[in-house]
Amino acid sequence: MEKYKIIEIKESVFADNDREADRIRAGLKAEKTFLLNLMSSPGSGKTTTLLRTIEALEKDLRIGVMEADIDSDVDAAAIAKTGARSIQLHTGGMCHLDADMTRQGLDELLAEGGVELAILENVGNLVCPAEFDTGAVKNAAILSVPEGDDKPLKYPLMFQVCDVVLINKMDVAPYFDFDLEKCREYIRMRNPNAKVIPICAKTGEGVEEWAGWLREQIRAWKV
Amino acid sequence: MEKYKIIEIKESVFADNDREADRIRAGLKAEKTFLLNLMSSPGSGKTTTLLRTIEALEKDLRIGVMEADIDSDVDAAAIAKTGARSIQLHTGGMCHLDADMTRQGLDELLAEGGVELAILENVGNLVCPAEFDTGAVKNAAILSVPEGDDKPLKYPLMFQVCDVVLINKMDVAPYFDFDLEKCREYIRMRNPNAKVIPICAKTGEGVEEWAGWLREQIRAWKV
Repeated sequence: MEKYKIIEIKESVFADNDREADRIRAGLKAEKTFLLNLMSSPGSGKTTTLLRTIEALEKDLRIGVMEADIDSDVDAAAIAKTGARSIQLHTGGMCHLDADMTRQGLDELLAEGGVELAILENVGNLVCPAEFDTGAVKNAAILSVPEGDDKPLKYPLMFQVCDVVLINKMDVAPYFDFDLEKCREYIRMRNPNAKVIPICAKTGEGVEEWAGWLREQIRAWKV
Repeated sequence: MEKYKIIEIKESVFADNDREADRIRAGLKAEKTFLLNLMSSPGSGKTTTLLRTIEALEKDLRIGVMEADIDSDVDAAAIAKTGARSIQLHTGGMCHLDADMTRQGLDELLAEGGVELAILENVGNLVCPAEFDTGAVKNAAILSVPEGDDKPLKYPLMFQVCDVVLINKMDVAPYFDFDLEKCREYIRMRNPNAKVIPICAKTGEGVEEWAGWLREQIRAWKV
C-alpha cells in the first residue's frame, strides 16, 4: 500500500502567473490554510529540515507536504513515515513550480480538507524557483554552510523574494570557511527584511526559533 | 585596471540550439581549442576546482576561462589572479547557458587566439544547464559530499549528459552520511560511461587524476 500519491504535474497554461498565484492565496485564506514555499540548492537539507519542522509542529497543526522533484520519490517516502499527509509532484523535467503547477498539487493535498500548514518543497535550484510566485503565503530559502557565505551575491533573486533564510548545517561550520556575519550582511544587501535563522536540522539546533517564527506567521494568516 | 572583462550576454535567438552547438564544436576543432563545460549546484566548489585545474595544467597548456554568473564577478576576479585569461559572463538572470550565449563568450575569450583549453564555468544549477548543449567538447559535473549521495537519483539529466563526475570535498566525508560506493552506483544507473573521480579541491586530493583525464581528452581532440 502506497502511503503517498505521485502526481505528474503539467506545465502551466496560464499566461499570467501572478494573477493565478493571487487566486491561490485567496482560496487558501478562505480555507485558513497557510502555504509555505521552501526553496534551496540541491542537498541543502530541505527534507531533513521539513522532518524537524513537522516534529516541532505536528502536535498543534495538521500538516500536509508536497514534495516536488524532477524524478524519484525518496523525499515523499521519508515524509510519509512521519504520519504527515504527503504527496510527490513530478515536474517532468521542469526546474521550478509556477502557480498553476502548485495548484495541481494543492487540489490533491487539500482534497480532504483540514490542512492548516501546507508546505511545498520546491525543486532543488537556487535560480528558477525564485522567478515564479507559487501562491505561497511566505517563501523560505535554505542556504547550507558548505555552499559558502557568498551565495546571496551570486543568486540575488532568491534572497530578494525570501521572507526567511535558514542557514543550515551549522554543526559543520568549523570545517568550512563560512562567515555567518558576512553572510547575514550579504542577505541584508539583497533584502533588509528577510529574517535569518541559523539552524542544524540534523541536531535540532535553532529549530525551535524557526518553528516559532512559522507559528507566528500562521497565526497572523488565520485572523 | 581590470584584469578581466565583463560581458553581458543576450538570450539566444537561435531556434536550433543543437545545430549551433555543432557549429561551435566544428570551429573549436579547426582552432584546436578544447572547450570544457563545468556544471554543478551552487557551492559545490567549481571555482576552487578550476583554480586547482589551472595550477595543474598551466605549464603545458594555454588556458582561458569563462565565468558565467547571474550577477557578481567574484569568480572571474579569483581566476584572473592565477594569470589565466578570464572573462565574466553575466547571464542577465538566465539560469543556464545555451550554445549561442557560449558563442558570445568564446568570441571574446578566443579573440586573441592561442587558447588550447577553454573552460566554461556554467551557472550554479543542477537542472537547467544540463538541458542545453553549449558546444563544449566534454561536459563535467561536480557533486560535493555535503549535497548527498542521492543526487543522481533526483537530478537525472545532469548525470546523463556528463562525461565525468568529480566528487568534491572528500575531506569532509567523515562529517556527512555520504556513501561513495552508493553514489557511484547511482551515477552508473544514469550513465554507465561517466568517469567518476573523487577529489578535494581544497587539499588537492585527486586533482592529478582529474588533470590526467583532461589532458588525455585534449590530446584526443587535437588530432
